[in-house]
Amino acid sequence: MPSDTVLIIGGGPAGLTAARAVGELGGRALVVETRERLGGMPDEANYAALTPDFRPASEAVAEMVAAVEALPGVSVRTSTRVTAREGEAGDFRLTLASGEATEVVEAGAVIIATGFQHFDPGRETQMYGYYEYEDVLTLQDLEAQLKEHRVVVPSTGKAPETLCFIQCVGSRDRRIGNTWCSKVCCGIASKEAIEVKRLAPQCKVFIFYIDMRMYGFWEDQLYWKAQEEHHVQFIRGIVTEVIRRGEKLVVKGEDTTMGRPVEAPMDMVVLSVGMEPSRGTVEMSKVLGVPLESHGFIAAPGNPLDTVTTEVPGIFVAGAAAGPKDLEDTVGMAGLAAARAVALLRTAASTAQPVG
Amino acid sequence: MPSDTVLIIGGGPAGLTAARAVGELGGRALVVETRERLGGMPDEANYAALTPDFRPASEAVAEMVAAVEALPGVSVRTSTRVTAREGEAGDFRLTLASGEATEVVEAGAVIIATGFQHFDPGRETQMYGYYEYEDVLTLQDLEAQLKEHRVVVPSTGKAPETLCFIQCVGSRDRRIGNTWCSKVCCGIASKEAIEVKRLAPQCKVFIFYIDMRMYGFWEDQLYWKAQEEHHVQFIRGIVTEVIRRGEKLVVKGEDTTMGRPVEAPMDMVVLSVGMEPSRGTVEMSKVLGVPLESHGFIAAPGNPLDTVTTEVPGIFVAGAAAGPKDLEDTVGMAGLAAARAVALLRTAASTAQPVG
Repeated sequence: MPSDTVLIIGGGPAGLTAARAVGELGGRALVVETRERLGGMPDEANYAALTPDFRPASEAVAEMVAAVEALPGVSVRTSTRVTAREGEAGDFRLTLASGEATEVVEAGAVIIATGFQHFDPGRETQMYGYYEYEDVLTLQDLEAQLKEHRVVVPSTGKAPETLCFIQCVGSRDRRIGNTWCSKVCCGIASKEAIEVKRLAPQCKVFIFYIDMRMYGFWEDQLYWKAQEEHHVQFIRGIVTEVIRRGEKLVVKGEDTTMGRPVEAPMDMVVLSVGMEPSRGTVEMSKVLGVPLESHGFIAAPGNPLDTVTTEVPGIFVAGAAAGPKDLEDTVGMAGLAAARAVALLRTAASTAQPVG
Repeated sequence: MPSDTVLIIGGGPAGLTAARAVGELGGRALVVETRERLGGMPDEANYAALTPDFRPASEAVAEMVAAVEALPGVSVRTSTRVTAREGEAGDFRLTLASGEATEVVEAGAVIIATGFQHFDPGRETQMYGYYEYEDVLTLQDLEAQLKEHRVVVPSTGKAPETLCFIQCVGSRDRRIGNTWCSKVCCGIASKEAIEVKRLAPQCKVFIFYIDMRMYGFWEDQLYWKAQEEHHVQFIRGIVTEVIRRGEKLVVKGEDTTMGRPVEAPMDMVVLSVGMEPSRGTVEMSKVLGVPLESHGFIAAPGNPLDTVTTEVPGIFVAGAAAGPKDLEDTVGMAGLAAARAVALLRTAASTAQPVG
């Protein structure tokens, strides 16, 4: 008998949106999440506000979770991972492990929604000193401060007078093997820059960038707004080094528009770290037997007209498990993956041979 | 009685993907298209190959159309427009007009998939001479040549020795009111540049840009590939004027990386025109009573976590009707809109009061 359940691996924005769509379509969904609760990266990394609308992330996540919990067809297993797969589209059997306990569940289709992980700046090829200087942060370190409605220099506990973002840390960098653009970091840095200026209006805020990837409405919603309303200064340039000099960090590099070297003292430096395939993404590729594409994310070979179908029939992907995605990408993919998965289950049910 | 039909307005990639999803979910879809056939802008504007995968556009469109035509629940009306709406979510009545004939159809939900139109370079604020010089083309003019596997200078009929693209024509420009980035033009220009180099390897190809918006995998799939494998030259700069001098066009502006004026003779100039709300989008906003957002596209106020729900219950939006979108965005939104629309019809059917 084909199973009427869609197994959704991951309880972040992609998994929650897919589960809601499956549930609203009258299907059954089982969401499996390795963390002890739902919410995914916005919850795990303490995001303050969403890009581009500045909506509090915890409120948005709570709403997504509540929508899923209200649906009778959706159930959730937290602190649980998928450790094995047998069977085929319409009739998968998946082993779930929670602590010492294991259990086999049936599913007609699977959606991989295992998200991304932030690039570890310890792997950077420049000398930005993340593990050396406590006043060098990442985007998500600053998010955690912003969530508490404050911005402080870690070494002094005071508000910064100068702060800069360095873009493309762990992205567009062949030497570390991350040849992709992580898509969202320009938007997130601009959003955080605005939040910093709101909390510490006297602070001078700079963003060092190669290209500002402010596509679509982000152009005026974030990029122009940051410059015109909040006086954030965007400097096109390459930062090659961050050093400590007295009480300041000194950012060294080249302003490529002015064609001259830059040496700028900063109280805080924020590294705009990119997206990498999460451990869960790599693990699910192995466990489920789903091929990765050349960058190491889940392959969806029908791109761009089919963003969700993997190379294994019955297994779909949604969100940043398939590459760098913003929230709009993620919810769209989740909707399409849910539609395709529920459609597959309908077909499997209607063509199944009665048993016995 | 609630209607079990989703009316889909527009037969391009968004509408076709939504129709396929509704049909595969067991729902009924009626696709209404003003042109005499399906396919949308890729068909209307003679696109050669899709971005970023270089797949022939006509093949891809044919596949999307065939998928829809194979579904018994989906019907199509071409050469037809929607002229009036009455009723509410679950029970809309829409007037369709085809020539002189009109008809009222019932639908439980509506998906607006009316796409975009290319910016008309006659409205540009710079002096690029599109209507003055026949060797100044737009992206889609060049697509039409590429579809015929050729690249020729219109005034001579010969292959060009020098060709440049000018980015952001009609985008990121407050003076004409188009404050957004059109998102796809950097990718499409790079794709076309590669195609030009394949057809005319001796031609020197330049792209004048402000920021290359090559997000995600486009970075290495198109941007690096264009530079490294095809020797396309990207010049960061502002082009202020195109003039004719003898047999050449002369592109004048500033190379902002080198900090010096540019004056480059070209055989052909290609204007990377951006996306604007299509006439159909503006018309459907009025006919259906669906508000536009500040840029003039269909408003989806739940962005970024709900990209498809308009301000009118039961009416959804997918694709470039809601703003500049690439094909990946479009198919994702179409899937989510289809899932939401079919879910709404389920709810409407289950809560309907029996009549009489």
